Amino acid sequence: MASEDTLPQPLQGIIPPMVTPLSDRDTLDVDGLQRLVEHILSGGVHGLFVLSTTGEAPSLSYRLRFELIDHVCKQVAGRVPILVGVTDTSFYESVNLANYAADAGAQAVVLSAPYYYPAGQAELLQYIEHMVAALPLPVFLYNLPSHTKLTFEPDTLRRLIDIQKVVGLKDSSGDMIYFHKVRRLARERPDWSLLIGPEELLAEAVLLGGHGGVCGGANLSPKLYVGLYEAAVHHEMERVAELHDRVLQICDSIYTVARHGAPVVKGLKSSLACLKICGDFLAEPFYHFGDAERQLVRERLAELQFPLGLPRHTRPV
Amino acid sequence: MASEDTLPQPLQGIIPPMVTPLSDRDTLDVDGLQRLVEHILSGGVHGLFVLSTTGEAPSLSYRLRFELIDHVCKQVAGRVPILVGVTDTSFYESVNLANYAADAGAQAVVLSAPYYYPAGQAELLQYIEHMVAALPLPVFLYNLPSHTKLTFEPDTLRRLIDIQKVVGLKDSSGDMIYFHKVRRLARERPDWSLLIGPEELLAEAVLLGGHGGVCGGANLSPKLYVGLYEAAVHHEMERVAELHDRVLQICDSIYTVARHGAPVVKGLKSSLACLKICGDFLAEPFYHFGDAERQLVRERLAELQFPLGLPRHTRPV
Amino acid sequence: MASEDTLPQPLQGIIPPMVTPLSDRDTLDVDGLQRLVEHILSGGVHGLFVLSTTGEAPSLSYRLRFELIDHVCKQVAGRVPILVGVTDTSFYESVNLANYAADAGAQAVVLSAPYYYPAGQAELLQYIEHMVAALPLPVFLYNLPSHTKLTFEPDTLRRLIDIQKVVGLKDSSGDMIYFHKVRRLARERPDWSLLIGPEELLAEAVLLGGHGGVCGGANLSPKLYVGLYEAAVHHEMERVAELHDRVLQICDSIYTVARHGAPVVKGLKSSLACLKICGDFLAEPFYHFGDAERQLVRERLAELQFPLGLPRHTRPV
Amino acid sequence: MASEDTLPQPLQGIIPPMVTPLSDRDTLDVDGLQRLVEHILSGGVHGLFVLSTTGEAPSLSYRLRFELIDHVCKQVAGRVPILVGVTDTSFYESVNLANYAADAGAQAVVLSAPYYYPAGQAELLQYIEHMVAALPLPVFLYNLPSHTKLTFEPDTLRRLIDIQKVVGLKDSSGDMIYFHKVRRLARERPDWSLLIGPEELLAEAVLLGGHGGVCGGANLSPKLYVGLYEAAVHHEMERVAELHDRVLQICDSIYTVARHGAPVVKGLKSSLACLKICGDFLAEPFYHFGDAERQLVRERLAELQFPLGLPRHTRPV
Repeated sequence: MASEDTLPQPLQGIIPPMVTPLSDRDTLDVDGLQRLVEHILSGGVHGLFVLSTTGEAPSLSYRLRFELIDHVCKQVAGRVPILVGVTDTSFYESVNLANYAADAGAQAVVLSAPYYYPAGQAELLQYIEHMVAALPLPVFLYNLPSHTKLTFEPDTLRRLIDIQKVVGLKDSSGDMIYFHKVRRLARERPDWSLLIGPEELLAEAVLLGGHGGVCGGANLSPKLYVGLYEAAVHHEMERVAELHDRVLQICDSIYTVARHGAPVVKGLKSSLACLKICGDFLAEPFYHFGDAERQLVRERLAELQFPLGLPRHTRPV
Repeated sequence: MASEDTLPQPLQGIIPPMVTPLSDRDTLDVDGLQRLVEHILSGGVHGLFVLSTTGEAPSLSYRLRFELIDHVCKQVAGRVPILVGVTDTSFYESVNLANYAADAGAQAVVLSAPYYYPAGQAELLQYIEHMVAALPLPVFLYNLPSHTKLTFEPDTLRRLIDIQKVVGLKDSSGDMIYFHKVRRLARERPDWSLLIGPEELLAEAVLLGGHGGVCGGANLSPKLYVGLYEAAVHHEMERVAELHDRVLQICDSIYTVARHGAPVVKGLKSSLACLKICGDFLAEPFYHFGDAERQLVRERLAELQFPLGLPRHTRPV
Repeated sequence: MASEDTLPQPLQGIIPPMVTPLSDRDTLDVDGLQRLVEHILSGGVHGLFVLSTTGEAPSLSYRLRFELIDHVCKQVAGRVPILVGVTDTSFYESVNLANYAADAGAQAVVLSAPYYYPAGQAELLQYIEHMVAALPLPVFLYNLPSHTKLTFEPDTLRRLIDIQKVVGLKDSSGDMIYFHKVRRLARERPDWSLLIGPEELLAEAVLLGGHGGVCGGANLSPKLYVGLYEAAVHHEMERVAELHDRVLQICDSIYTVARHGAPVVKGLKSSLACLKICGDFLAEPFYHFGDAERQLVRERLAELQFPLGLPRHTRPV
Repeated sequence: MASEDTLPQPLQGIIPPMVTPLSDRDTLDVDGLQRLVEHILSGGVHGLFVLSTTGEAPSLSYRLRFELIDHVCKQVAGRVPILVGVTDTSFYESVNLANYAADAGAQAVVLSAPYYYPAGQAELLQYIEHMVAALPLPVFLYNLPSHTKLTFEPDTLRRLIDIQKVVGLKDSSGDMIYFHKVRRLARERPDWSLLIGPEELLAEAVLLGGHGGVCGGANLSPKLYVGLYEAAVHHEMERVAELHDRVLQICDSIYTVARHGAPVVKGLKSSLACLKICGDFLAEPFYHFGDAERQLVRERLAELQFPLGLPRHTRPV
């Protein structure tokens, strides 16, 4: 099947980390998945990232991960590049997943540090070098120290940037000082893509030279994030201010309902259920909201003027 | 096969977290494994813990984990209880592994927090409750916040201690204040076993009411740790001081050779290779020592008077 | 003397945290101080912050702190507002210092959390309320969790923002998600000033609604930071990109010479010594550079085209 | 006055970190102080540590610190050695305080890392070397990374242990692995005293070779801690178990009333007020308990069979 030929280099724009619609712990919500993919693509996004942190990848069985890759690759059918998360604590299982993704037609994989053992930069460097050599697709690195306990330090990146198969980095550290450092050291690779994770930082990341964002909120409002990205690219500062503020409103309302872990995923899945796109089941260790929290999500979506009352197929955001 | 009938309650003594002998990334060193199991059992240990952190469990493919369980269960053949680590980020894969272990004849499983997402106590409590209900064997909880980002807080344990199928806790936090707190709240469960992880703390843990230790060093010197355990049980304070100091010497010499991650596993595997018990291959993200470090391990073992020159089958420690 | 009448509300622009020129552990370098103040003011800055973290305030004796306040207030003589850091672990000593500053003619004080005991938000809120009531000048809050172990959480700020005497916040957390949250909740106080600490973040802070920056680098190159501030205010995006990059170059070269603590202060003082503005003595626990590091600073300043060869009084940056 | 002649080397036993009785933010409760000193000394303690963390030293004005030193030195009058905390962020103020303590007749000072700036081991080593040279009394190092952000790493201690004027270390890290490491490296200095901070760890610290403890609870029950120390020294294991458990009970009840910061100091001062020894005023940033919490302390003291009903001067514990 087609693959890396269709991956723009550098990859630019909004690449949503898709939530994984589930109807049970080990059952994909296939109908919800179809609606969600179309909802996201209708917003004009520039790629789709499956098996991300937002997609609850580490919580899913391997069987379900394979099934998800199959469905999404078939449905997207080349309309946008598909990136597949293959981060795992086991080298073998990562490579296995990547091979599956390549066969299914994905365009790239996303790889973070193996996340169980606290390791050092020397191990991280060697791990990525070995892994990249074994992977069948272009690789985006993924910096997420809150989950992996390990940052891709600039000195490590300086080495990894020389590997042609590494085509970019998604930075979810939330540390813009780090982001600017990486941006400067990646200048020698014009085909290299630097993407921001936290959507609260999309505006400044793009205004100051980043290539786009992997925004969880684009599951819900793909047009909003695409619009903010484009306003920032074109330095339309009033529009940037307006849309940046809209993003902050979503973060301050939808993502603050959960009292414990995974507030973004819970908020997104609950919102998508309100919009009748897919259900709000979460894999352990997380659980969907109770009635009080669901009601709160509904109220906040209404305040934010999401079209709760419209029938399912006319739900543009 | 037999199972929980043969699990003493409380489980007491030394239960080594066995290293996993490998000849390659995805190949078990079967001969080394046989020698290692006999070496450990010859020291009079009170159980064997496979697929632990020291055993590199999260780095192994599932296929290899199954193979390891098979081999160990067959070889041990009921001589001591076998505990199998089933911690995973995926609920489904944990249960699958536990079912396999039960069928193979293991006596208990060891379960920590799912370690990718930072979660809260509410999620941890519900996760363990659901998981324990789905598991086919008695469960030891495993407190290892350095790797899982989550402590079993006393208020959470207070709830979990009421579940009969939970039969103990291994505490690898290194925090003796926590250990003493858990000891006090576990008093209402005389069948419950409180085991210490770090071997530097074995002496005080047993002197002050703990039930034993899951000591990595017992891969190398099982008799030493069994001896220290027994001296502490019997309040033989001079012998405790002497053996405690011997343990600290091992920690300060063998475990300090590695400059980066996994210093204990690297030190143990390199030492076992010097003693011709098994090879020193490590699964990614770790790597065995180079020549300089191997030589240093050899010198330190000699200083510690390990019998490097003896033929393989007469390797008493 | 004059005081708060001359404090613009909101305070906007570049307010350098002045380094404290010392000729010995407890001796002010009075001549160096005079040159430094004029050097900074010549760059068009909008205020001056003495006894900051960059100014080594907690390392100085109280006697020297008083002497410094006297000198600076006399020399500045109302040309720009003077902010004085009064953060201390002792309530009494903070108030004493603030009274001294008010008598000397300063316009505002800067107050962070008392930094010895790890405290909670409830204590922080009550502490700031009591302190503000006892202080004779308008108060800028100072968020610096890396040093104080305590963040001004949004819920705490929501309460503090109602106190008229609190006129702004300097955020040195480095966390732009936090910065945007604070900016939104401060909207109800148009007289309130939100300033960014890390100079790598000045561009985005001002582009997205912040009021300015407390940039250490403005000790060295006041015009550069004033220029970047103004370009950002006027949305001159090309100039923003150029000057932002110049700032990052300084950070990546001058502030990376030190291998241990206080790299920014050491880099700044060493640079100021190269430029013959003041000496490079640092108070304990820090120490000025040795010869090799001094030479490295000199080389890097030359690469950055600082005018090392010019006579002292013609040192425009 | 007398000084170091009367300091046993090594110092052994229980050296309570005395709480500082206050009647207001800047007013010593002189009567309460007198009663407290006698209460503590009546328990047979082996020293007294004033201006400790438990004593709220960093929160007090310098004037009050001087006054406290005067009162305690006069009242104790050589009955036990007095250790004075001189940790400060300012080198000058530390030395000044130490000189005052020496003149007043104290036997030693206690010195931790300067606690504002995050520093490295190189700075810590040089700082302590310079400071010790400038101090007029023997020095106990104080390891308290939770407050100072800096651990005395073993490699740093290896250097400091050669300085004759350094006579010991108080370890409040709570990390017994560290404690055992320090104990081993201090063997070459038989005059050197290794003391444990957290009272939950007193039993094991003394059983395994430590010299005693700096136990906050000894403000309340000096005899209990002296008894536990002596039982541990003499390996009376049943008595150790009984008194260790009594200590844990106090920790689990009295120190868990506070919901925010400083739970130990709040619990101790509130308890001492119930026992009519001194008032419960705390310096900012902390505040004494409200009525509900005071009542809870009273109830818990009653459960623990403290003699609440006895008249003040017959308050044996």
